Amino acid sequence: MSRGRFITVEGIEGVGKTTNLAFIRARIEAAGHAVLQTREPGGTPLAEDVRNLLLTPREEPVASDAELLLMFAARAQHLARVIRPALEAGTWVLCDRFTDATYAYQGGGRGVPAERITALENWVQGALRPDLVVILDAPAEVGLARAGNRSAPDRFEQEARAFFDRVRATYLARAAAVPERYRVVDTSPGLAQVQQELGQVLERWIADQATGD
Amino acid sequence: MSRGRFITVEGIEGVGKTTNLAFIRARIEAAGHAVLQTREPGGTPLAEDVRNLLLTPREEPVASDAELLLMFAARAQHLARVIRPALEAGTWVLCDRFTDATYAYQGGGRGVPAERITALENWVQGALRPDLVVILDAPAEVGLARAGNRSAPDRFEQEARAFFDRVRATYLARAAAVPERYRVVDTSPGLAQVQQELGQVLERWIADQATGD
Repeated sequence: MSRGRFITVEGIEGVGKTTNLAFIRARIEAAGHAVLQTREPGGTPLAEDVRNLLLTPREEPVASDAELLLMFAARAQHLARVIRPALEAGTWVLCDRFTDATYAYQGGGRGVPAERITALENWVQGALRPDLVVILDAPAEVGLARAGNRSAPDRFEQEARAFFDRVRATYLARAAAVPERYRVVDTSPGLAQVQQELGQVLERWIADQATGD
Repeated sequence: MSRGRFITVEGIEGVGKTTNLAFIRARIEAAGHAVLQTREPGGTPLAEDVRNLLLTPREEPVASDAELLLMFAARAQHLARVIRPALEAGTWVLCDRFTDATYAYQGGGRGVPAERITALENWVQGALRPDLVVILDAPAEVGLARAGNRSAPDRFEQEARAFFDRVRATYLARAAAVPERYRVVDTSPGLAQVQQELGQVLERWIADQATGD
């Protein structure tokens, strides 16, 4: 039995992650592979508790180091309890966000140096990396408009726009650096056109996996 | 104004940590220094939330990597929000457990390799280390007896005993490796005798600090 494949899906708000995750899952299952769909931060009861700590608004400012360690704590639990066992059992794992999101949001967005993230990535994951990272890409103004900010941007929304520009740029830079492991799909067109491209990308990638076994 | 001193108090269960923390605090205050007393894991609202995650019994086994990252996440927040600002303001910080406890419990007790802990210690703390670590020492059977296990040990209690033997041995090994930063106080005798020794140890150490400023 071959090891399962680890596929992560990344992208800023409003790129259609939920819809396209369902589409990707259906394509992998259609190719005959069992799929475990999960998400980060979260994916186990403890990791979801950590997710709640991270997402609950609080008066106390959260130190960026503490946020990063919480993120990787949830990831360590998710890997140990869910992702690694599934991959070893031959199940394909489809994960809504993973470590690329940490580089994009905490690194690119918030300015945490990439080498600080890499140190924790190596500590937590060892050699494990996703086999395929699908980046659902769109300019920040397209994503934010779809996510609901349709009025003229106020100062906060302009800041949000600059933040998501940096997040997007980090995703694209990571894809450009290791092109064999990343696929970037432009989600600016209508859904039918996006899923036609996404379907072709997946078909080719899944076919390559069968050859590689 | 001189930087505050960072003093941590360590020891297994039943060595009289609570009573002796109050004694140490009183001695430092008597020497004219403002003291902030705090504890780990915890010390801020977020860090206390993480402490609750760590201490709440749950069905899901907690991966040792996840536990260690949660511990250091709480520590990063505690350092950023409480410990570093106090030290910079000239306040002495007296902390019930710190990173030595991670080496002793997760490392010595649970078998996490020390170099894994050191990597996170350096990542989170940079060069910051306690100025003084007071180890309240007693054989595991003395501590456990005081902590309430007074009947003949059953199999679980024997395991607990072996666990606390390893925790204690790790504390003592760390003290032996860097003797200038550690003071080991034997808490096997009665409290009056223990506090006489503890008082002398502190008096000498505090006097040395004044010379050093």
